[in-house]
Amino acid sequence: MTFRYATRMDQVGPSIIREFARLTASPEIISFAGGLPAPELFPIEQLKEVAVRTLDKVGRLALQYSDTAGSPALRDKIAGRMRAMGVPATAESINILSGSQQGIEFAAKIFLDPGDVVVCERPTYLGAINAFHSYQAQFADVGLDDEGMIIDELVQVLETTAGCKLVYVVPDFQNPTGRTWSLERRQRFIEVANRYDLIVVEDHPYGALRYEGLPLPPIKALDTEERVLFLGTFSKIFCPGFRIGWITASQEVLAKFAVTKGNADLQTNSLAQAELNEFLDTYDLEAHIGKLRDLYRHRRDLMLDIMGRDLPSAVRFTRPLGGLFTWVELPDPADATELLSRAIARKVAFVPGTPFYARDARASTLRLNFSNTADDRMVEGMKVVIDVINRSLASPAGSVAGHPGGR
Amino acid sequence: MTFRYATRMDQVGPSIIREFARLTASPEIISFAGGLPAPELFPIEQLKEVAVRTLDKVGRLALQYSDTAGSPALRDKIAGRMRAMGVPATAESINILSGSQQGIEFAAKIFLDPGDVVVCERPTYLGAINAFHSYQAQFADVGLDDEGMIIDELVQVLETTAGCKLVYVVPDFQNPTGRTWSLERRQRFIEVANRYDLIVVEDHPYGALRYEGLPLPPIKALDTEERVLFLGTFSKIFCPGFRIGWITASQEVLAKFAVTKGNADLQTNSLAQAELNEFLDTYDLEAHIGKLRDLYRHRRDLMLDIMGRDLPSAVRFTRPLGGLFTWVELPDPADATELLSRAIARKVAFVPGTPFYARDARASTLRLNFSNTADDRMVEGMKVVIDVINRSLASPAGSVAGHPGGR
Repeated sequence: MTFRYATRMDQVGPSIIREFARLTASPEIISFAGGLPAPELFPIEQLKEVAVRTLDKVGRLALQYSDTAGSPALRDKIAGRMRAMGVPATAESINILSGSQQGIEFAAKIFLDPGDVVVCERPTYLGAINAFHSYQAQFADVGLDDEGMIIDELVQVLETTAGCKLVYVVPDFQNPTGRTWSLERRQRFIEVANRYDLIVVEDHPYGALRYEGLPLPPIKALDTEERVLFLGTFSKIFCPGFRIGWITASQEVLAKFAVTKGNADLQTNSLAQAELNEFLDTYDLEAHIGKLRDLYRHRRDLMLDIMGRDLPSAVRFTRPLGGLFTWVELPDPADATELLSRAIARKVAFVPGTPFYARDARASTLRLNFSNTADDRMVEGMKVVIDVINRSLASPAGSVAGHPGGR
Repeated sequence: MTFRYATRMDQVGPSIIREFARLTASPEIISFAGGLPAPELFPIEQLKEVAVRTLDKVGRLALQYSDTAGSPALRDKIAGRMRAMGVPATAESINILSGSQQGIEFAAKIFLDPGDVVVCERPTYLGAINAFHSYQAQFADVGLDDEGMIIDELVQVLETTAGCKLVYVVPDFQNPTGRTWSLERRQRFIEVANRYDLIVVEDHPYGALRYEGLPLPPIKALDTEERVLFLGTFSKIFCPGFRIGWITASQEVLAKFAVTKGNADLQTNSLAQAELNEFLDTYDLEAHIGKLRDLYRHRRDLMLDIMGRDLPSAVRFTRPLGGLFTWVELPDPADATELLSRAIARKVAFVPGTPFYARDARASTLRLNFSNTADDRMVEGMKVVIDVINRSLASPAGSVAGHPGGR
């Protein structure tokens, strides 16, 4: 039959995340493309113990249908993590989600009518752009500098754009740029959000992965009007495969999230919740995060050292204080998608910057992940990245259409 | 702040499923309310072995981000189950979902514009009503008899209702009635769906739980035009807590589901998928289902025997050939919600029929689950159910407003 789809599907393209995931799947490819944690640090031996103990202790409960809002014991532990970040919270302030991506999807479903405007950073997380698009959102975007979102530009956007309802931000070690907002920007931001009565979705997947400097409070800690929906996840500090994230928000918003969760998938995998709870009871998550920080700091330094040494000064890149990514800006009119084709031909992958723009994409940008690649492969892979960049700068984009590595 | 929600939230009430789940949570309550499998048959000892072996064999992969469509090995095994039901399928015909509920949600998001009409059975699964409502669907419903959906009434509805786009059906051991469609009804149904160019969502959570008679082909097996989206799940034949279901549909529809899944939650828990795959490699799921059938058949028979013996003939109930539920119809104007209050006061729970109606609810109906209650507690609980029914028949609804058990 010929299917007629909902109008909202007109704005939904093929899954770019999925396409890029394919680039990372083959072991021959040295991939800086995904946002993957280092699997060699997954706590596999501990999880074997934890799985057996969880099934022994609470197997019947953990395998059954359970509370839509999530495991009370796990929510209680997450509340403790929130309080440690300066956010007053109890178990009742937390709902468990199947990853923080689900929080973005639900925020879109709960708050956005077609045509409502989402304000976001330029560039921003492409999975958020796609989720908001799938509810027919429009976008306005605001530039970033090394201190975070440019607040004067935010105000200008809000003054000149009708229908701004929700702001989506990633203030810590942002995906894709690795940038972190200063405390002053966070304070000015929440004042503006209060003044313009905006719903704020603060996505915080990387916050615990800081490699230097002191932690800053999340915007949620500065929220005096319960307008911030804080999205957290265990994907980057434990395991992505468990799909356990959470939202911290007002009771009213959590009630809407619970109903939406019930309709969407009833509950998050309850065995995974019980196992994570048991892991947190038995092992020291902070010590585990410490190991992640040490490894990722080292890999960040290696990648930045290579780029600092071998890239011409016309190429700019960010020096992230944490997280998984650095962001590279080539002189225009370089086309990072062209460069990717040539890199792939030499078994190296990265992600062009284009899909991270909600509007007016800049083709001369690209994102590099440093968390998932061991030293020897990073050295080898970065040689290729730098070589394709240098060649493209030597021969401007128009002249290489017939390049054998192109598609 | 005062939140302004999306218009679609106007149609979304509090989570009724969640409210009823609360009724089942306390161990003092004998509950016929939920749709819960018997936890004493969860394969806990096997799962301990499976968890350790899975982490040893594929831990790094299973804990990492993975394919949005799901584990290829698991999809391949599911394809085998589909072929055994007469549906041609390969791994590529299957996408993994976080339970079949997610398939209903995605079908609503992908196909329904506000005001599109969903045709369903009267009554039908309340989780489907809620998910379709959350995308601003309208409903038309079609009566059931002991052979299934009444096809002449379906045709009449289609002829007299503008905007019918999608039909949602549960042809095997339906929730809430326990009814099963005959082969002839299935054949006539798919002819009508073809003639009126309808998208069909066939929800099949209970199909493997048949206690007597021969299995019938799912409607998907009769689908010559790829218009049927078949939703399956391991919740009732393995464990609900794992949240693993699937869709079998055309490549075009599966591509839309994959993009929608990526936006919604990236992927289903990949460790759970790997463990289920390992379980299916190691143990005999059919033998496990055989044990479930034996226990549930026994419990069904006990419940039906008690009702047959102790209920007056004015009360009608279904005799399901499989699944988890029987459906009770009291003479009007009985109010099952009133009866529930009185039963709860005596520590027994069931679900009134009202929320299972997409429109024009019949208050004199209720649903009883028999899979989750051991013999002694079933005998004790059914005494209370039958007593509150008999008392309500003796004193018509209007005269008992002050009953001490009421609220």
